[in-house]
Order: sequence, then C-alpha cells, then structure tokens
Amino acid sequence: MLSEIEPARKIDRDEYKEAERELRWQLLQAQFALQRKGRALLLVISGIEGAGKGSLVQRLGEWLDPRGIRTNTYWLHSDEEESRPYFWRFWRRMPPRGEIAVFLGSWYSGVLQGSIDRPHEERLQAAAGRINFFEDMLNADGAFVVKLWLQLDKEEQVRQLEERAGKQQNPRVTDRPYEIHGHYDRHVEVASQLLRATSTECAPWHVIDASRRRHRELQAGRILLAAMQAELGHSANTPQPVAFTPATDTARLDAVDLTQKLGRGKYKRELRDLQSRLQDLAWEAYREERSVVAVFEGWDAAGKGSAIRRVTHAIDPRLYHLVRIAAPTDEEQRHHYLWRFWRQIERDGRGTLFDRSWYGRVLVERVEGFATEQEWQRAYDEINEFEAQLVEHGSIVLKFWLHISPREQLARFRAREEELHKRHKITEEDWRNRDKWPQYALAVEDMLEHTDTPHAPWTLVAADDKPWARTFILRRFCEAFEAALGVPR
Amino acid sequence: MLSEIEPARKIDRDEYKEAERELRWQLLQAQFALQRKGRALLLVISGIEGAGKGSLVQRLGEWLDPRGIRTNTYWLHSDEEESRPYFWRFWRRMPPRGEIAVFLGSWYSGVLQGSIDRPHEERLQAAAGRINFFEDMLNADGAFVVKLWLQLDKEEQVRQLEERAGKQQNPRVTDRPYEIHGHYDRHVEVASQLLRATSTECAPWHVIDASRRRHRELQAGRILLAAMQAELGHSANTPQPVAFTPATDTARLDAVDLTQKLGRGKYKRELRDLQSRLQDLAWEAYREERSVVAVFEGWDAAGKGSAIRRVTHAIDPRLYHLVRIAAPTDEEQRHHYLWRFWRQIERDGRGTLFDRSWYGRVLVERVEGFATEQEWQRAYDEINEFEAQLVEHGSIVLKFWLHISPREQLARFRAREEELHKRHKITEEDWRNRDKWPQYALAVEDMLEHTDTPHAPWTLVAADDKPWARTFILRRFCEAFEAALGVPR
Repeated sequence: MLSEIEPARKIDRDEYKEAERELRWQLLQAQFALQRKGRALLLVISGIEGAGKGSLVQRLGEWLDPRGIRTNTYWLHSDEEESRPYFWRFWRRMPPRGEIAVFLGSWYSGVLQGSIDRPHEERLQAAAGRINFFEDMLNADGAFVVKLWLQLDKEEQVRQLEERAGKQQNPRVTDRPYEIHGHYDRHVEVASQLLRATSTECAPWHVIDASRRRHRELQAGRILLAAMQAELGHSANTPQPVAFTPATDTARLDAVDLTQKLGRGKYKRELRDLQSRLQDLAWEAYREERSVVAVFEGWDAAGKGSAIRRVTHAIDPRLYHLVRIAAPTDEEQRHHYLWRFWRQIERDGRGTLFDRSWYGRVLVERVEGFATEQEWQRAYDEINEFEAQLVEHGSIVLKFWLHISPREQLARFRAREEELHKRHKITEEDWRNRDKWPQYALAVEDMLEHTDTPHAPWTLVAADDKPWARTFILRRFCEAFEAALGVPR
Repeated sequence: MLSEIEPARKIDRDEYKEAERELRWQLLQAQFALQRKGRALLLVISGIEGAGKGSLVQRLGEWLDPRGIRTNTYWLHSDEEESRPYFWRFWRRMPPRGEIAVFLGSWYSGVLQGSIDRPHEERLQAAAGRINFFEDMLNADGAFVVKLWLQLDKEEQVRQLEERAGKQQNPRVTDRPYEIHGHYDRHVEVASQLLRATSTECAPWHVIDASRRRHRELQAGRILLAAMQAELGHSANTPQPVAFTPATDTARLDAVDLTQKLGRGKYKRELRDLQSRLQDLAWEAYREERSVVAVFEGWDAAGKGSAIRRVTHAIDPRLYHLVRIAAPTDEEQRHHYLWRFWRQIERDGRGTLFDRSWYGRVLVERVEGFATEQEWQRAYDEINEFEAQLVEHGSIVLKFWLHISPREQLARFRAREEELHKRHKITEEDWRNRDKWPQYALAVEDMLEHTDTPHAPWTLVAADDKPWARTFILRRFCEAFEAALGVPR
C-alpha cells in the first residue's frame, strides 16, 4: 500500500500560489456547508517521522476558517488519560456537530508503535477491527473521518531528519532520528498492514508522497476537499438496514421470581455485613487500581435510588462518582450519544455509578421515538463495544435491572403521593410511562437479548421486596470485586 | 475559633429519627427552590482527620436529592491538575447554576497542609486573601458557599483513629494516625488562623463538634438548611456599588503611532528570523515546563487572525492550542463567565492562544449591554486576579490590542467585500460595531486603565501596517519568552 504511491511532483512558486488560492476558497465553502449541515469532520494526519505532519497541520489550519477547528495532539500522555480506557482520550476531543477536529497522533498511534516494537499480527488485526468499528460508528452518526498518511522513502527520511537535526525541534524526532531510521523497513511493513486493514469504504486511507512540501500540501488539500464534497453529496445518516427481530414475549422478565423476600432482622445483619465487606473491597480495588462501572436501570419506583444509596453508603466518597442521567445538555446533544457517558468515566481505582445510563437509548429513546429505528438498533453493538473496552481496560462492569410487578409499582406510586418528602419523586410522566408498560417490557427483553454479554452480563434483580433487592445487589458487588481482585471470600 | 464550640450532645435514636425526618423534608424543599432560582451551592466539608467528613458527605447525599449534586474529592492529584494553576482543579468542578457541588478537600486543603508542614503567617494570609476573593466572586455571580469544619479534641481524635485502625480505610488516615495526632496542636493553631482569616460575611465558617455522629449530622444539616433559606431570602446579585469613573477620552489609544511601517523586503527577513527564533523558544519553554497564555484583542479587521497565524506558524502544533471565542454554549452559560476560559487553559510547557478572550466582558458585553454595570465593573478585578494566578503559577501572560484607525478599518471592510475568500469575514454586525466606535474606544481605555498590570501588561500594537504589526507581535513573543526563560538574546 505504501510502495505504489504517485511520486511527488516539483511545483514552482507561481503554480503553487495559483492553486492554493483556488483550493483555499473551495475548502472554505465546503467547511461552511458542512457547518450548516451539522456534520463533524475528524481529520487524521499520520505518517512516517520526518514527513512534515506538523507543518501540514499548520498549513491546513491557515486554509480553513479557524473557528470550529481544534487540533489535538497525542504525543505525551497524561495520567488522566492513561488511567482510563484507551479511547477515552479521543472521545474527550470529539468535535461537536459542524466542527472539525484534526488529530496529529490518533487512535492509530498506539497500535502502530506497539506493533513496531513487538510485531503481532493478530493483535494488529484486532486493533484494526476496533478502529473500524469506531469510525463506522461515528460515520453512522453523521460525522466522517478523513485519513492522510505522509510517506517518505528511506533516503528521503534520512535527508529530512538530518536537515532538522541542527534546529531545536520535537525532541522525540531530533533525539533519535537514526534509531527511527533503523526501523524504517519494519515501520513501513507494519504501517502497510495497518493501513490495508483500516482502509474502509467510509474512511479510506490516502497516502501522499511527502518529499516535496508544495506537492504534499496541495495533495492533502485536494484530498480533503474531495472528501468534504463527497460527504456533502450524501444525505446524513444513510439508513443502514439492520436485521432485527424484536422480542414478542417477555420470557426473561417473567422468569424473575418476585416472591423472594428477606425478613427485617436478617436484612439488618446482612446489610451491615455486606456493606462492611464492600467497604474493604472498594479500598482494595483502589490499591489494585481497578475501577468499577455500575449501571442501575429498572422500572420507575423499582427502588434504584435507595439501592444505590446502600451501595454508596459502604464506599468512601473519595472512591466513587455517582452520575444521575437526566436530559442531555446542548454540548452533549452536539455529540454522539455515548460521548456524555464516556466523559463521566472515572480513573482507575475508582467507581462510576450510573443511575440510568446509555441504555436509555434502547429503552426510553426507543419507546418514546426520540431515537430512530436505525439509531437504537445499532446502539446494541455500540454499547457492547463500549463495555468491551471498559472490561478490556480492567474495569469491572456491573449492570442491574431492578424488576418489579405492575401491581407493586402502583402501590409505590400511591405511597409516594402520600408521603411529603417523596412527593417530588412522582410526576405525570411516571404515570404516562406506566401506561406503556408492555412496550417497555419488550424493549427490556430486546436489551437483555442483545447486551447480556459474557464480559458484561446483566443482573436481574427481584425488587418487589426492597430488603431482598438491596442485599442482592450488594452481594453481587462484593462477589464481582472478589472475583476481579482474587480476594478469597 | 476552634476552642469555643458547642459540645456535642448525646441524641438518642428516636429523637434523631424524628429530627432527621423533618430536616430532610426541609432540605429538599430548599434544594428545589434554589434549583428553580438557578443558584449554585458550593458546600465545603473540612476538618480534622478522623472527624467523619466522609460519612457526613454520605449522609447529606442521602438527605438531598442526588439529581443536581456532585461530590468532588481532592486527595490524590492528577498531573493534569498539577500542571495548571492551583484553582484550575476547582474551576473544572464548579457546579452549574441550580446545582450543588460538595467539596471534600477544597481550596483550603493546599494552604492548610502547607502551613502545617511549614508555618508561614504571611503566606497563609495571602492565601486567605485569594480564597476570599474567589468566594466573593462566586457569590456576586449568584452562587454561594457554605463551609463546615468538623472538630475533635485531642483525646477524641486518638479514640476515633484507633477505632478505625483495624478496618481497611483511607490509607492516608490509617497508615499514619499517630503522626497526624502528633501534629494536633499545630494543626488546630493553623486551622484557627485560616478559619478566622476566611470567615467572611458572605461565607462564614461553621465549626461543629464532631465527636458524636448524630449530633454532627443534625448540626451540619441544620446549618446547611439555614444557609440555604437565608440565600433564598436574598435577591440574586445584590447590586454591589463599585466606585467607577469611566474614561472620558481615549488618550492611550490616541498615543499609538499608526504611521509605523515596515517595507516588504525587510518584513520578509524579519518574519523569517523571528519565526525561527520563536520556534526554538517554544521548544525551550516546553522543556522548562513554562506555559504561555496569549490574548489577542483588537478592532474588527485589525488583523488578529493573520497575526495569530504568523505566531502559530512558528510553533509546533503539539505545543499550543488556539481558542477562538464565539458565543458560549449552554453549559458555559450556566457558569461564571470565567469558567469557559479556565477550561481551555493548557498544561505546563504549552501555549493557549485566545482569539478574543475574557476581555469580551468589558468590551462587547459592556457596550452591547449583555453584562450589567455591576458585572462588567467587577470584572476588572476578577480578570486581574485570574491573570495573577496564571503568572504566579509560572505562565507567561501576553495581551495584545491591535489598534487601527477608523479609516483603515473602512478600507479593509470594503476590500473584504470584494475578495471572494474573505467575504465570509464581513457581516452586518461588523458594520453595526463600527457605528459604535466611540463607545468601544472608551471601553478599551477603561480596560487598559484597569487591567494593564505589572504582572500582565498590555501591548498596544500599531496595526494599520500589517507587516509592522505582525513582526511587532512576534518580537514581543520572543522577548517575553527570553526574559522568562533567561535565554540570552
């Protein structure tokens, strides 16, 4: 892939100026049009060391309108980044709809560097799969990815690096140019593999001979322009038919034994014991730098809030962050829906507890029609991938569905209306949701069917009896910690 | 201050339950009322080690509605925090209007710990002054701060810490309880000083004898409730008259010699030399971990954008972040106006360049009436304090006002209308702003008068001749770097 590229042409100053003028004008028009359409653009600039990636980024930044562009560089990492799943660092820099993010260093950097240091074909293919999923997902959401690879041949790389060695420059380049050069062949081999594996229909790689500045800049500008114009020709969110057969019964929910109960005396003892056990385990997880991500979903009035309080009561407040999911802010609405969950993920050693979560996409957003059919249907895979990344990073993922009977819900709604300090918890909306019980039940069944994965299984909680539900959840927490930490019970 | 506290009373279970029920209900009402009024609450929980701060935070979290509360803990710092001015870590966790942020560990922690380790009366007073300014500023913006200090006497602290020593706990406590105890007297002395110095009218400290859990919780709840209710009684933004005499002439602007020019040949040479010098200096600043914060303000069409490009062209894109200030997002609107600038500040060793900035508060927001008189008048001090914090942290602060004559502006507006790829840069609004030239000029004079500080001086740039302006700015950049880095020219 890197050997058959069009060689750089010598371009004189006047030709360059003329072409630049025209290109610049067209790029601006395309940028404004994309802004109006609310399409986000991710521009990945990658390539071999010494090829002039930095100066290309500067040039493109001059051509485009700097309002609505942000350049993101990944060359030194922060501990905040390193103590979260790898893609967190990119999610935090996702461009909002209508804006452009330039990535100098990107989700390709890690796998490239890793594979040069220690080649491993399978790992590279797995990483490529993850990357393709990521880019496809953004694409389906109305963003698009343009990827440029700047290439130099062996002799040219030496020449470029030597020329710069005298100047003060990126120490990563100047401190070890020959070392990099020594790896030239392997670098090219690995990069070829990776580019082949990640050149997809929606986000192909474009390879540019970077040996001449003017050629490199005009080529990059033209490729970018063509990609923008092609994107403007498409309608957003091309419907991608997903083969999906919705649930017709609620067998999994029906199988929950709602008669399970715990007596008051036993409850008090168990609660105390479990909370004390969880307290210690949370500190142990902190020391072992393991994080937990816990999702609480369930029917209205199923007791999510009070169950969460029993959990948080056991954990030092320094060790967890509780996130209540309400309506998204407008910054959140300008991003892929997973963005607002990614941004909440805590660092290693700490917990993030979600009172409602990303599953809203396939529950309330589906039932109420806030998400299109394509959107909620592709969300199952997106969610599974998100959780897989958490687990792969070392997080413990727990997901609870608190199940109650319609009868019990009715009783609780009425009780809330009668109790002064609970009255705020019951609204018209709760009654409306209750009327849609059957639709929600089917959505829950589909959710269980598609997201009950081996790495992040669902725990169905019989919650008609609150003491039973609370201790059940606490026990699951403890067991998950014990298993992950190798603590003997 | 810590010796004359009301001793904890023994409260039996029934009395506690009864009081809790009532308190909880009232706290919820107050919370909802504050939400409706859009008032943010910062609750600082501080005190001596072993006093049960963590468990108090949990209890308050149970009493209040967890929607709209976030608990922030500061006990381990991240490198992202440590490579920015101290208050950045608090600004990033400011509650939006209508919400509550609990701070376990806060802006008091640093000075307290520092003063216990190495007492220094003057430093403590200076830190207290900074804190008071911070809290007053939030208060003026409609937020309010409630501060609780949990105190134990010497014997009780030993008892509490020994009791916990068996359990797995916060390693900071359990690993060295006696060491802390050994410092008891000094801790109390320093804390007393600090509490006295920071007990202001708008945010007094409340000290609680923490030796009995029920007493501690009810006391804390009642103090919080009283503060919330008092705040609900006030109208937001109590007008604080500021003695302010607006400028009546434009002497400083008029003194700029707009006839200064640079010929084309000289410009090219100087530009190349300055950019090459700046490139090296930016890398040197990176190695020395010094950051630069540069503000570009000026008349419409004064050439801010193209001057910035001459600067960024010289700096590796890995080393700076360019921020174009446009309309605030709604997340930004729900915070103090400085929040959206704080959130952009880059880490040590890198630059943050602002194309328009926080000075909008005293320019466009003043002239167009987007900010009230009190708001823009107090902004001068707020801005000076913000910049002082940057400088104290080690950042190089540069502020440029690009000055042109009304005649030159008119010529440039007309030229923009004629040039295809510049036409998007001229709008109706630009013409409207031009009509308000005299009002803007007076606002600029006031800005220069009040924010041209020794630590962060303004640089007035004669910008009728673009080559002159660009090289002038680049030279100022280089000189500021050289002075800060001790690089001989």
